[in-house]
Amino acid sequence: MTELVNVKNIGLRGVTVADTKVSFIDGINGVLVYRGYRIEDLAQNASFPEVAYLLLHETLPTTEQLADFNKELQEAAIIPAYIYGAFKNYPAGADPMDVLQSAVPLLSMIDPERNDDSKDANLRKAVRLIARLPMLVTGWHRIRRGLEPLPTDHSLSHTANFLYQLQGRRPTDNMVKVLDTCLVLHADHTFNASTFSCRQVVSTRAHMYAGVSAGIGALSGSLHGGANAKVMKMLLSLKDEKNVASWVREQIDNGQLIMGMGHAIYKTMDPRAKFLKEMALTLGKETNQEKLVELSMLIEETALAEFAKRGKNEIKPNVDFYSASVYHLLGIPMDLMTPIFAISRIAGWTAHIIEEKTGEAQEKPALYRPKAEYIGQYCGPMGCTYNPQKKRTAA
Amino acid sequence: MTELVNVKNIGLRGVTVADTKVSFIDGINGVLVYRGYRIEDLAQNASFPEVAYLLLHETLPTTEQLADFNKELQEAAIIPAYIYGAFKNYPAGADPMDVLQSAVPLLSMIDPERNDDSKDANLRKAVRLIARLPMLVTGWHRIRRGLEPLPTDHSLSHTANFLYQLQGRRPTDNMVKVLDTCLVLHADHTFNASTFSCRQVVSTRAHMYAGVSAGIGALSGSLHGGANAKVMKMLLSLKDEKNVASWVREQIDNGQLIMGMGHAIYKTMDPRAKFLKEMALTLGKETNQEKLVELSMLIEETALAEFAKRGKNEIKPNVDFYSASVYHLLGIPMDLMTPIFAISRIAGWTAHIIEEKTGEAQEKPALYRPKAEYIGQYCGPMGCTYNPQKKRTAA
Repeated sequence: MTELVNVKNIGLRGVTVADTKVSFIDGINGVLVYRGYRIEDLAQNASFPEVAYLLLHETLPTTEQLADFNKELQEAAIIPAYIYGAFKNYPAGADPMDVLQSAVPLLSMIDPERNDDSKDANLRKAVRLIARLPMLVTGWHRIRRGLEPLPTDHSLSHTANFLYQLQGRRPTDNMVKVLDTCLVLHADHTFNASTFSCRQVVSTRAHMYAGVSAGIGALSGSLHGGANAKVMKMLLSLKDEKNVASWVREQIDNGQLIMGMGHAIYKTMDPRAKFLKEMALTLGKETNQEKLVELSMLIEETALAEFAKRGKNEIKPNVDFYSASVYHLLGIPMDLMTPIFAISRIAGWTAHIIEEKTGEAQEKPALYRPKAEYIGQYCGPMGCTYNPQKKRTAA
Repeated sequence: MTELVNVKNIGLRGVTVADTKVSFIDGINGVLVYRGYRIEDLAQNASFPEVAYLLLHETLPTTEQLADFNKELQEAAIIPAYIYGAFKNYPAGADPMDVLQSAVPLLSMIDPERNDDSKDANLRKAVRLIARLPMLVTGWHRIRRGLEPLPTDHSLSHTANFLYQLQGRRPTDNMVKVLDTCLVLHADHTFNASTFSCRQVVSTRAHMYAGVSAGIGALSGSLHGGANAKVMKMLLSLKDEKNVASWVREQIDNGQLIMGMGHAIYKTMDPRAKFLKEMALTLGKETNQEKLVELSMLIEETALAEFAKRGKNEIKPNVDFYSASVYHLLGIPMDLMTPIFAISRIAGWTAHIIEEKTGEAQEKPALYRPKAEYIGQYCGPMGCTYNPQKKRTAA
């Protein structure tokens, strides 16, 4: 039975549209779990591939299972020549998120299991996507600078290999640890806008690549994954500003957003933010760039005080606020910050797509096909009179 | 105020998620209007560019406005060299919908207004997309057969030029008229799955190209735009089947779908279907391929009788049932049938994206970010115990 419900004008906020077993957020208490495990435990103890395995297989891997999974990731880490070939034709100024959204459907073309929609085939596609998305980012970053993409270094971990392919040199252990923790922290977040896009697209029975490409499109928006780059822009523009505190006050007085502050779901500290803040502090010291982190902390402090004065205690730094500094201190260019969000979230996207396709958490999965209330021109049941062109006058 | 609503497990069916002024469906009475005008009037009187103008500008164009709009379409009908260059690298067997989903973000790369999110800029982007989507389809179709894409013939209309670029010869007036009517019939359909994907992606403030690419992904699914190709497959597989009627009965007895029959919204005749049926009949006669149309009619007749016996009078042929035959009789290959849906629906997608971005029909547009009910593993508020790898046992 379809119950008629009118929830318009609120972007589905607070509307439960499905069941899920992938992850859970308690926004009041600042809790995030993946498959039952607290994000704090995972951030401190688990590697990104371990978390990807957990999201896909619903259980933490044994040592042997994780070794196999890492091997599968390594073996899948190749990009077909026609993709890098295509990249070489693109304008060098092309946005990496456009390149990424475009490249994912291209990956489907050589997937031998493109038309196999079984759960096992989709789990294998997920591994290929997790392995290949980073190489689309690094490949484009090298090609746009006139360099050849680097092949996968099989002696490196998934995350270390990404930094190697991006920067052309082996990263330090600490850099790898920091980035890997970032990937763990961003890997899933229930029905956020990009994940919902993925699920919605595949609810038509479109293949996984079509869904992931849509998710990348949603992630590119400045209200979603594009926010970390916006935070970085803010930090760079304020770097030489002497009156940061007064700038923050003015922004808030004028009803403007402070990028990276506040969240649709969390009404307390985003549990991911404290890890990012700690990493930013450590990296700042290590790289003698403490000023950037101090700037962030000054913005945070002033903004929290100003919001508190206005009774808005729920506006706190979110996952983007300190991740921008962390990525910057890792030497990652601003326009690759959102793509890095994607190379992490791909684990969650693919887990959600598989859940949507198998119907494992749904009573009856169905094409998402909502209604809209028509408030436009209406001329009665027979419609408006279709005048011949000559009789029309310009509006 | 956010009202908490639980509508899970029904794919948002019957749930009103927004206001719109673009189009309206009365599924009980089989009514479809674009901007207040009945689809019957538009199908009989208006050209596709006229309908695209109506969808984008909310009013029918004067003769002069339509001439200007057609000129803008013609001038925009060029594809940057790097896109056809990329196509030449793709595997020849690549699915045209994958090519199309991938190519749309590539178009953004040379749009001088990519970062201008004003309504006027987005209206111009819409014209570019309406002009260029057909050339992505025809360009790929020629390149995959080892041919060079044909340049736009400025003496031809939008629809005639598509058939010319596709088939390498000038189409007859009747072919143009038939295809143009098909494009009018498919141009919009309120919050269908692909349009909702477009709106959802741009609700993050992603650009129009990111939204359209997502819409193409959703359209590719067999429960949505992919259905016309599935109908064609059914017709071809039944062509030499002597017992069509018994095959139909068996399908229904076994609870299987008859492709192209039934619709999520229409509980009576889809108002678009009768035009497609008439065109199929006329084209069948003209091309001496009446057997294909007779086969469709036999399937329709048997299925309607069988559904009626089971009290399912609401299952009728939908827009896909006869459009498959029409496209086939126009000489369009099966895997280009869904792309043709896209070159029509692009008019509606862009109109909806502009509505979403401007907030013209919404009190307060917001990022679509629904909730999901977590029914997965739960070990209390502190989360499940994170065991070290060695202590884990294989599930």
